[in-house]
Amino acid sequence: MLQRIDKLRQTLKEKNIDAILVSNFYNILYLSGFKTLTENEREAWMLITARNTYLFSDNRYINDKSQITNNNSIINNKFLIYKLITPEKGLIKHLEEIFQEEGIKNCGVEADNLKLLEFQQLIKYFRETMFVPTEKLIIKQREIKDEDEIKKIKKACEIVDLCLKDILRLIEVEKTEKEIAFRIEFWLKEKNYDLAFYPIVAIDENSAVPHYDTRNGNNKKARSGSIILIDFGAKYQDYVSDITRMIFVGKPTDEQIDTYNKLLGAQTKTIKYLTNLASINLGGGRGKQVDQYCRQMVTENQLPNYQHSTGHGVGLEVHEYPKISPISEDRLLENQVVTIEPGVYFEEKWGIRIEDTVLVKKDGVETLTKFSKQLLNI
Amino acid sequence: MLQRIDKLRQTLKEKNIDAILVSNFYNILYLSGFKTLTENEREAWMLITARNTYLFSDNRYINDKSQITNNNSIINNKFLIYKLITPEKGLIKHLEEIFQEEGIKNCGVEADNLKLLEFQQLIKYFRETMFVPTEKLIIKQREIKDEDEIKKIKKACEIVDLCLKDILRLIEVEKTEKEIAFRIEFWLKEKNYDLAFYPIVAIDENSAVPHYDTRNGNNKKARSGSIILIDFGAKYQDYVSDITRMIFVGKPTDEQIDTYNKLLGAQTKTIKYLTNLASINLGGGRGKQVDQYCRQMVTENQLPNYQHSTGHGVGLEVHEYPKISPISEDRLLENQVVTIEPGVYFEEKWGIRIEDTVLVKKDGVETLTKFSKQLLNI
Repeated sequence: MLQRIDKLRQTLKEKNIDAILVSNFYNILYLSGFKTLTENEREAWMLITARNTYLFSDNRYINDKSQITNNNSIINNKFLIYKLITPEKGLIKHLEEIFQEEGIKNCGVEADNLKLLEFQQLIKYFRETMFVPTEKLIIKQREIKDEDEIKKIKKACEIVDLCLKDILRLIEVEKTEKEIAFRIEFWLKEKNYDLAFYPIVAIDENSAVPHYDTRNGNNKKARSGSIILIDFGAKYQDYVSDITRMIFVGKPTDEQIDTYNKLLGAQTKTIKYLTNLASINLGGGRGKQVDQYCRQMVTENQLPNYQHSTGHGVGLEVHEYPKISPISEDRLLENQVVTIEPGVYFEEKWGIRIEDTVLVKKDGVETLTKFSKQLLNI
Repeated sequence: MLQRIDKLRQTLKEKNIDAILVSNFYNILYLSGFKTLTENEREAWMLITARNTYLFSDNRYINDKSQITNNNSIINNKFLIYKLITPEKGLIKHLEEIFQEEGIKNCGVEADNLKLLEFQQLIKYFRETMFVPTEKLIIKQREIKDEDEIKKIKKACEIVDLCLKDILRLIEVEKTEKEIAFRIEFWLKEKNYDLAFYPIVAIDENSAVPHYDTRNGNNKKARSGSIILIDFGAKYQDYVSDITRMIFVGKPTDEQIDTYNKLLGAQTKTIKYLTNLASINLGGGRGKQVDQYCRQMVTENQLPNYQHSTGHGVGLEVHEYPKISPISEDRLLENQVVTIEPGVYFEEKWGIRIEDTVLVKKDGVETLTKFSKQLLNI
């Protein structure tokens, strides 16, 4: 955590900002290890100045020994000064005190997270401190994973591999989308892991909807001849993985076999391309190059282009940087973790997507989700 | 939905606003029935003008027949004009077109939801349209539930009653917090319901932490003599319930029995107080009065005061308006649904909280969570 905060301080210095007020739930988790019950209810804030690191939270957490004992970064850890928010002394009063003590003249805010109303309240109260809207400072830092983060993501990838193996055995004809999603969820939770996001289980024509919502869908049943798309991820110690595999019930049609193999070719070639990009041209490769390459591999094979991005970073969140999209200028760098997930969709008929989570390394790329991509039929 | 939008249009008229851009996930769900996969990734927007209602979303949802067929309000419903967001034509371009067509001079934004960055992008692009920060316009409207909403909340309350009954049978000595939480989750999801929030299951000294986080806690085991706090809610067709009950394993101490009975007295008296307030003084009762009354009932009995609010509204979200807190000026009105949940906490020893979800009616109050509040021991 200390290294992460030091890195952030460097960025602040470069930008001539005295301090930054952190509101984003995941950024707080990343910088302090502190996690509130809800993501969206502003139960914690952080302030990082040149001298100190402050964590603000209310009394609902003060007796929460679990946060203190389970997580050696909180309170008992010297780098963090804990400030209690009470009805009498809210965030603003605390900030006022600290700004005065440390002579803070300007303070960054996370413009991509802070609400307009919160910003208005800050600038209304503080006449002498300038609040500087910043964008993605910490989120961009989170692109590059440290050793501890990579270890956790690797484990989250191992977990989906194991889960898929068990789930496959459970899928027979006459299982519905929701039942399969439910099996995945309980497989994970039973073992004290969590879902990275609610699984997408899409059968037949539903697999042609790239963003199919299994929870609100029509809960199609797998029958003989069905095609099942399973897109899910595990969460291990706050870090996630992301994988998509296809399952064919009985014998797939020739068109499906052909499409699957072509798409698989495009996906594996793209991972290889990323390897070359990373090893030869490190620092030069950009998200849009990888996206373009993958689309080319798909369309060269007479398959239709897909409407979504080719991939995205993963970490504490399922969608992080770098983005691998047609317009992404994000650099591909060592120790990033990204997905490669092209798809082919035939509207109202069926769709196929193949997705892996991969780690970009100095000398290439390591595919972290190792579950077989051989055409699977049951 | 149409009535909800009409009501909102009235508010806009009163405030002299031509239109409102809706970004809040739950407000979009409330006004259109449309639900995106994630709450926070801005996958949908709405614009309500005096003439039309627009829904903006991207192609990931366009083929999503489930949203169209399961929910008669989307697309095929005449009140809603669907606008597709593409890389070429984003939200801003769509807004420009509509503002021009309809002569929109000023447009409300949800300042309590819109990000500072999003606001900056809007005001930078539109030189001739004024964006008016509004606060809680739709959220305040959602305080008062309509018939359909009440029906769903009632069902969500029936579900927690049934769940508790079954879960009680499953709790024996040597069950851990996480196992009990898991059982609750499993019970709900198996039946195609959902959790309103992750259950708080807190055993012994953990029950003294009002906001105990079972997921990150020390997973205490229930033993003979243990006190178990279970605070959870169900979600039924997007609407939630909220309940807290205590379970004593074996014989509670005299102090625990005494505390439980005193707290129960305070809680039921507060519900009665709300009844009187609602029936005699409708439109006059305020959240802070109920909060104050409940605290008085607790402290008059020589019990320590609690640090959290006495209650909150529930609906699409677990924490809605009105608030029942020491500083809440919110009016208590017919067809609101609120919780009443005082607690007593003895730090590092044990705590007790009793919570019901109640409906405020013209002629009193109906307790929707009907599970017994008799001292429960197993």
